[in-house]
Amino acid sequence: MEKEHQSTGLRGQTAGTTELCTVGKAGTGLTYRGYDILDLAENAEFEEVAYLLLRGYLPNVSELKQFKQNLKSHRGLPDVLVTVLENIPADAHPMDVLRTSCSVLGNLEQEHEFSKQVDHAEKMLSVFPAAVCYWYRFSHDGVRIKTDDQSEEGIAGYFLSMLGDKKPSEMFKQVMNCSLILYAEHEFNASTFAARVCASTLSDIHSCVTAAIGTLRGNLHGGANEAAMEMIQDWQSPDEAEKNILDMLSKKEKIMGFGHAIYKEFDPRNDVIKQWSEKLANHVGDKRLYAVSERVEAVMKREKGLFCNADFFHASAYHFMDIPTKLFTPIFVMSRVTGWTAHIFEQRANNRIIRPSAEYIGPELQSWVPIEKR
Amino acid sequence: MEKEHQSTGLRGQTAGTTELCTVGKAGTGLTYRGYDILDLAENAEFEEVAYLLLRGYLPNVSELKQFKQNLKSHRGLPDVLVTVLENIPADAHPMDVLRTSCSVLGNLEQEHEFSKQVDHAEKMLSVFPAAVCYWYRFSHDGVRIKTDDQSEEGIAGYFLSMLGDKKPSEMFKQVMNCSLILYAEHEFNASTFAARVCASTLSDIHSCVTAAIGTLRGNLHGGANEAAMEMIQDWQSPDEAEKNILDMLSKKEKIMGFGHAIYKEFDPRNDVIKQWSEKLANHVGDKRLYAVSERVEAVMKREKGLFCNADFFHASAYHFMDIPTKLFTPIFVMSRVTGWTAHIFEQRANNRIIRPSAEYIGPELQSWVPIEKR
Repeated sequence: MEKEHQSTGLRGQTAGTTELCTVGKAGTGLTYRGYDILDLAENAEFEEVAYLLLRGYLPNVSELKQFKQNLKSHRGLPDVLVTVLENIPADAHPMDVLRTSCSVLGNLEQEHEFSKQVDHAEKMLSVFPAAVCYWYRFSHDGVRIKTDDQSEEGIAGYFLSMLGDKKPSEMFKQVMNCSLILYAEHEFNASTFAARVCASTLSDIHSCVTAAIGTLRGNLHGGANEAAMEMIQDWQSPDEAEKNILDMLSKKEKIMGFGHAIYKEFDPRNDVIKQWSEKLANHVGDKRLYAVSERVEAVMKREKGLFCNADFFHASAYHFMDIPTKLFTPIFVMSRVTGWTAHIFEQRANNRIIRPSAEYIGPELQSWVPIEKR
Repeated sequence: MEKEHQSTGLRGQTAGTTELCTVGKAGTGLTYRGYDILDLAENAEFEEVAYLLLRGYLPNVSELKQFKQNLKSHRGLPDVLVTVLENIPADAHPMDVLRTSCSVLGNLEQEHEFSKQVDHAEKMLSVFPAAVCYWYRFSHDGVRIKTDDQSEEGIAGYFLSMLGDKKPSEMFKQVMNCSLILYAEHEFNASTFAARVCASTLSDIHSCVTAAIGTLRGNLHGGANEAAMEMIQDWQSPDEAEKNILDMLSKKEKIMGFGHAIYKEFDPRNDVIKQWSEKLANHVGDKRLYAVSERVEAVMKREKGLFCNADFFHASAYHFMDIPTKLFTPIFVMSRVTGWTAHIFEQRANNRIIRPSAEYIGPELQSWVPIEKR
């Protein structure tokens, strides 16, 4: 492919309008409907942020109570989905499991009219954590977990409680709550844009979110926290980490969890999750992984001038909470489904089918040649 | 929403390059890799066109033989997919069934490396007709059809033979072959573009095609031939059709199957399928539907200056072949999967993540308000 035909990926081209998010602009660089991510991460429950994204404003006490009640009422998996999950092999990719769960849900609870779109989004908020945990525990541990348990108030606790057999600590729930807030929304990133392209044909919400999950699955998008974990997990000390990073850099290997397509100087989400990672390290008595992570951060800054993005310290934070590495990207889905569905609503409210042009670089008009003469 | 913020849908904006297709340019207005659609529709087998799209050139005799042998070897459904299909209710949307089938396939036959991408595309070409027919016949007729039958040489016959209990006629197979060619590829339409957005994160082929199926499902995209059929099916005569069309036009209702986002004067695919529709009408002894369709075409031309697109005469053609209306859009999938996967390969070969910008029209920076003060 000649250089003049290099893909531009629509970088810098405006593909539409949004009221949902700014990236790299106002405040510390990330806002949801005008609220700074640091304020939200410090003060909010994830359910408040979900409400803000889905309904346009922060709920009052009774609205939040009703919203959380709705979400709890959606707990538990449809029987058909349980059957499907029990048939998916243990070596499947968890993102394929979630993509399939969303698609199956669309067969069972079809979105016949857009007026019920918020209900469908709420249902997904409860079904996704349950689906991935049910499949994981069934295929890996042979356990059929209870997914309609009402004892945990919020999604963070609901998810963590299904992952293991003991009740999650308050601190773990607090970190997961914060993590879900940090990942909830990020403007026209690739998965959100895929959801909007799908929505622009007036397709149903399950098709749109299924498309988004599949798009987030790619290594250039949602897989960075998993890739960071796989990189650092075997390094026994900061010095070993430094040696390995320098070695990787000299081979021009990609170091996951650093830099960003839009942010140029820092990712505002990093400070938040880094602090939590440090607290968790102290809480669980870690002497290795947090120190390794800090050294990697310092070396990347010194050698390449690159900063940690949201993903890098998420790796150690999730690890300290005993979350299996292969479930890191599914957590992203549990959170980002709020942003995706809010964008779907926005696309529907002011729609034109998204149908760009292509530059043709193929052959000129060719004459048909019968097969026996080829 | 103010007028200045109306969605533009990236119309006229170039989102990348392609060697696959021109729409509204060379030849009669539609070419696949430089071959005019009229030449292909007149002379080719669908498998030759699929080979052209997937591998870049028209096959010779032995290449085509091998390709068709590969496709036949992929017939038959994996047991897990059969279980899933038997659990999907009869009132599901057939496009949701296909979207789910593609997603399930990704759990069972994961694309671990891109070097096998053509094999996965070939698998889909055989699995999609079988999946939709299996689900349809099981849920509607209580019949478990045999999906690994090797008696039909091509996809057209394979599909038609699974739909009913008798062997499809040569004429029906010929029309289906032609229809699959007409729908195979159409540049950066919304579903293809969704597949490319997904591919641009380096996600797997099943995620990309799942996204495309969900996007094609929308009424503004793949559903037009079904909508045309539902419109004309109860009209008993050309005069009744004319009266109803005039009535719909006076109420500014949308008439499906007319006009096109890119073609301005005619859709080259219409002439081809219209001729087949007429031949089929004579073949099956129709005295009503073809005449109704012709009158609708004439009235739309006279009243609105609008031409039939590919979808309008597909409605009557499929109907004459006894294909249930709800399976019209799934046929589009069985065909377009060739174009989608060819675009996925092209995106991967010269990739940059597709991540456009948004124009922010939301609230300015807002201060956090504690919940008890809202």
